[in-house]
Amino acid sequence: MTTTTRPALPPFLAALRGQTPSRRPVWIMRQAGRYLPEYRAVRERASFHTLCTTPDLACEVTLQPLRRYDLDAGIIFSDILTPLAPMGAAFDFSQGAPRLAAPLRHEHDLARLRVVEPLEELAFVGEAIELVRRARPEIPLIGFAGAPLTLAAYLVEGGGSQDFRHFKTLLYSRPDLVCSLLATLADQVARHLAMQVEAGCAAVQIFDSWASILHPSDYRRLALPPLQTIMTALAPLQVPRILFSRGGSDNLAALRESGAECLALDWTCDLGAAAIAAPDHVLQGNLDPVVLCGDASEIARRARAVCRAGDRARAHVFNLGHGILPATPPEAVSLLVETVHAHQPEA
Amino acid sequence: MTTTTRPALPPFLAALRGQTPSRRPVWIMRQAGRYLPEYRAVRERASFHTLCTTPDLACEVTLQPLRRYDLDAGIIFSDILTPLAPMGAAFDFSQGAPRLAAPLRHEHDLARLRVVEPLEELAFVGEAIELVRRARPEIPLIGFAGAPLTLAAYLVEGGGSQDFRHFKTLLYSRPDLVCSLLATLADQVARHLAMQVEAGCAAVQIFDSWASILHPSDYRRLALPPLQTIMTALAPLQVPRILFSRGGSDNLAALRESGAECLALDWTCDLGAAAIAAPDHVLQGNLDPVVLCGDASEIARRARAVCRAGDRARAHVFNLGHGILPATPPEAVSLLVETVHAHQPEA
Repeated sequence: MTTTTRPALPPFLAALRGQTPSRRPVWIMRQAGRYLPEYRAVRERASFHTLCTTPDLACEVTLQPLRRYDLDAGIIFSDILTPLAPMGAAFDFSQGAPRLAAPLRHEHDLARLRVVEPLEELAFVGEAIELVRRARPEIPLIGFAGAPLTLAAYLVEGGGSQDFRHFKTLLYSRPDLVCSLLATLADQVARHLAMQVEAGCAAVQIFDSWASILHPSDYRRLALPPLQTIMTALAPLQVPRILFSRGGSDNLAALRESGAECLALDWTCDLGAAAIAAPDHVLQGNLDPVVLCGDASEIARRARAVCRAGDRARAHVFNLGHGILPATPPEAVSLLVETVHAHQPEA
Repeated sequence: MTTTTRPALPPFLAALRGQTPSRRPVWIMRQAGRYLPEYRAVRERASFHTLCTTPDLACEVTLQPLRRYDLDAGIIFSDILTPLAPMGAAFDFSQGAPRLAAPLRHEHDLARLRVVEPLEELAFVGEAIELVRRARPEIPLIGFAGAPLTLAAYLVEGGGSQDFRHFKTLLYSRPDLVCSLLATLADQVARHLAMQVEAGCAAVQIFDSWASILHPSDYRRLALPPLQTIMTALAPLQVPRILFSRGGSDNLAALRESGAECLALDWTCDLGAAAIAAPDHVLQGNLDPVVLCGDASEIARRARAVCRAGDRARAHVFNLGHGILPATPPEAVSLLVETVHAHQPEA
């Protein structure tokens, strides 16, 4: 009898395909970030915007955490707002929080947004991906984009917000304009993610950072259809699609219908309960990032608790429930990665 | 046959006791606030702190929305941080957001907090309540306080926070200190609420504005016991206890065990689903406050949708899902109150 052996998938991709990985994969949202001294060193000589738009620099900071830690995936250094600049809405990052000088609050502002060809207008992202792939071909690289709802809220608010008053007032008074904006953004996001896959990304993640600003029925009615459009557009590329959303589990039923293979949860969700509620999905998450600022014993204890909850899912990719905090001691990440890799599911 | 007729309870109190009220009660979180021109006029001559601590002024602004609208309850004008000042942690409100000059982050800081006798140190709250009761004895008045978790987070952070890093780092490294702090706060909150009831409040509401910063299992383990302590301490007073918490429904199972008769939900919860999940509780909420900044037709449509969801609850008190926004047009509140009172449950 002859057996055909296919080369084993890396643990991250095996888990995303619902297979049993050789070890539990772990990566960390914002793993290339300010908690790393080597990242801060690069930032001393280049702005955040320059990092995002210069392939050499984006590649360098993408590689930094992969040199330091035994991570199971990289994620290309970029920003969810990056694709909005060529569309006609360039955010300014120079004051820390991103700001849009002229928020898009009227029909004529929104009508000026145009869908662009990523290979022309966002080529620097693809070039950075190719550089990372060449440097570390053995590590799966994640491409990403913001979800249409989150991007739309940024565009209308002109930045972050406490109450999203402008965006939701537009939504409640001119839902037609918001739906049209969401459709335009879905088109751009799908193109942007496809370009990243063609440049070498093995998986994509969509960040719906502001999923929790709406009532669940509005989320389903307004935010879900553009997500489904994106997932459908990406289906022929056959890469796993991860959907991260903030907020509790109230949107979980809608997210299950998005078409994403993997749902990434924040730390306010009960991962074990989500595993029961979404048995067909791979789950990613969801340690509170602040845990990494605490005691070593607590980091290990809480990481193992997340692993045990993740054991109930179809498959589990370990991650934080939100981006790693700048105040995190870098050695906490080493401990976390070791703890996750050492954890064995109970028989 | 003689029938003994007891005077009918006001709709707000009838609903809170699970009875069928003569109309659906409605009040609005932060109903005495900056959206009212008459409130802004008072604030032009007195600081927020002065308003909270001067019975005549607190009474005046408490009465303002009751003059303008046909509301079913008043809520005494105060702040959840007010009781912390005599305890040894006076927040400064002069810059808009409350700030504590020296956040309590170490054991010796926390040890200095002392439980005070509200009748001595917070008598101005009771006096304001008595003035309001005298002016509008027919309208039930709500006394309130912050939940221990929310107050503890304020004390350790020294104000609001994006990530609650300091509070949660303390929680994850010295849970004993945080539990002790929560117990102290529970004692103070219970005393403060009891004093308000004795001064004339017919119901109390506890605001857990930051309930959603923890994992649901941490919320249950740490935040629930002090809430239960408060509810138990108040039980002999026989006033309805309302518990408001921010975030989705992930903490609903824990909140059901708090001892509160009424659970107040924010707008990210599905009120109809909560009615099924918490059939023994009166529910309060949960219209998105931003709706009041939109079209009249949308206000009416969405208010009716909340009423229909509330019809599934044991009883329903209409409210917003969070405090009314300063940008709200005052006439939107008139429309809201009329719509809620006009809505009839489907047979």
